Amino acid sequence: MASVRRVTSVRRLDSLAAEEPLEIRTGVAGPGRRRPLTVTMRTPGDDLDLAIGFLLTEGLIRSADDVVTAQLCAGAETPNTYNVVDVVLAADVPTPQVDPARNFYTTSSCGVCGKASIDAVRTRSRYDLTTDQLVVPASTLATLPDRLRSAQRGFDRTGGLHAAGLFTAAGKLVVLREDVGRHNAVDKVIGWAVRQRRLPLHGHMLLVSGRASFELTQKAWMAGVPLLAAVSAPSTLAVDLATEAGMTLVGFLRGSTMNVYAGANRVRT
Amino acid sequence: MASVRRVTSVRRLDSLAAEEPLEIRTGVAGPGRRRPLTVTMRTPGDDLDLAIGFLLTEGLIRSADDVVTAQLCAGAETPNTYNVVDVVLAADVPTPQVDPARNFYTTSSCGVCGKASIDAVRTRSRYDLTTDQLVVPASTLATLPDRLRSAQRGFDRTGGLHAAGLFTAAGKLVVLREDVGRHNAVDKVIGWAVRQRRLPLHGHMLLVSGRASFELTQKAWMAGVPLLAAVSAPSTLAVDLATEAGMTLVGFLRGSTMNVYAGANRVRT
Repeated sequence: MASVRRVTSVRRLDSLAAEEPLEIRTGVAGPGRRRPLTVTMRTPGDDLDLAIGFLLTEGLIRSADDVVTAQLCAGAETPNTYNVVDVVLAADVPTPQVDPARNFYTTSSCGVCGKASIDAVRTRSRYDLTTDQLVVPASTLATLPDRLRSAQRGFDRTGGLHAAGLFTAAGKLVVLREDVGRHNAVDKVIGWAVRQRRLPLHGHMLLVSGRASFELTQKAWMAGVPLLAAVSAPSTLAVDLATEAGMTLVGFLRGSTMNVYAGANRVRT
Repeated sequence: MASVRRVTSVRRLDSLAAEEPLEIRTGVAGPGRRRPLTVTMRTPGDDLDLAIGFLLTEGLIRSADDVVTAQLCAGAETPNTYNVVDVVLAADVPTPQVDPARNFYTTSSCGVCGKASIDAVRTRSRYDLTTDQLVVPASTLATLPDRLRSAQRGFDRTGGLHAAGLFTAAGKLVVLREDVGRHNAVDKVIGWAVRQRRLPLHGHMLLVSGRASFELTQKAWMAGVPLLAAVSAPSTLAVDLATEAGMTLVGFLRGSTMNVYAGANRVRT
């Protein structure tokens, strides 16, 4: 029987994590030439990074060179709600096709499209992680969650935001992004790196605040990140993919303890 | 500077939360008449509940009467991986259309399809929550997380599963489902209730282990649940939708404390 204590009620203001839909449109230059590609629920902010990161982690662009312009636009809405990003792709970039059989749209959140696509992604990343020379002391890994947490402004205010942080091998935070969706936080980090022309992210580490899913592992591989760490648990498929990719996957990174599920050779104890 | 302690390394087996793709196919009776509708990454188990719950919360079916059969099938895979659910809809149920402009596929995970669809969902639920007479003591609400947690077997083993639990007004757990995805856990609960012909879920409470997003609020409304409680934070859009729906939304339900973000009239302190 759970204990029950007396509950008193107080009215007060509370800060909440913002959640709004973002539609990403892609196509070549020219009025009316872009079509809706996907919609994701996200925390507004860094929306261009989010769109660019999404396109890269889905394998639709290879680098910043594949993007002519990216801007927030009004779409069909009047006035502009800043919930549509219009991405003009270079003329030689294949326009993403809407293929119902491939269920492309699902990937905005879940990151995969059934067995056929799980197989496909294993050859889609341009980057070979097996040759990445990163080696990091476990003691450095153990410092990352505190560094992420202390840089996380939104969470302190709302308690409702996931975070993704990119770190150097020495444990220095390079960039942090927060979002109601973990996949968006990761896409925002990767999109930032794409626009900064920092890909592949050899020698870097990516830390996520929640669990490590297949999707996040896939995104890290697409960006060439050799080590993915999560504060919470990984899934079976995440471990399988990390093993295939030659990626180091760390879970339950809390205090001074952690579990290494793949690529343990990169963690020095 | 974060504290660093010496880290020692031990090799041991660990239980992980399973994650596999599930493809949902729908259509009318007859060989080859069903088409892929969506794919979601889920923890295998209760897959028929998941498929039925998804179809209901997306507004594609109204009750169990709209489903002729639902079964795990081999799909294009040989041998059967049990990752495809084939749902035969009644002849008078409109076949779900793949409309690229509506970005339907996104909804398997994010639950919305841009502003137009957010507006649309506000008229789509068949159930009026404003007349629901549920009133629950805060002291009863405070017991729910412990009850959910003690019934959650998968989490104890893996630390990687979200949970959703349906409770009576008296705080009795009716059904609990776990999944790597919160939206799947909720769809599994609702799908179970659909198949048990318990909709609308007037007088019931739904507790989720994580945050309360727009998507989960939408799903609760589609099933006629008048009170949604979350262990963690809600988003702005979740509060907006709950307010519109006349739903009570409780967040940060921990120990004996909670925040009530909408419909406070149903919580007696």
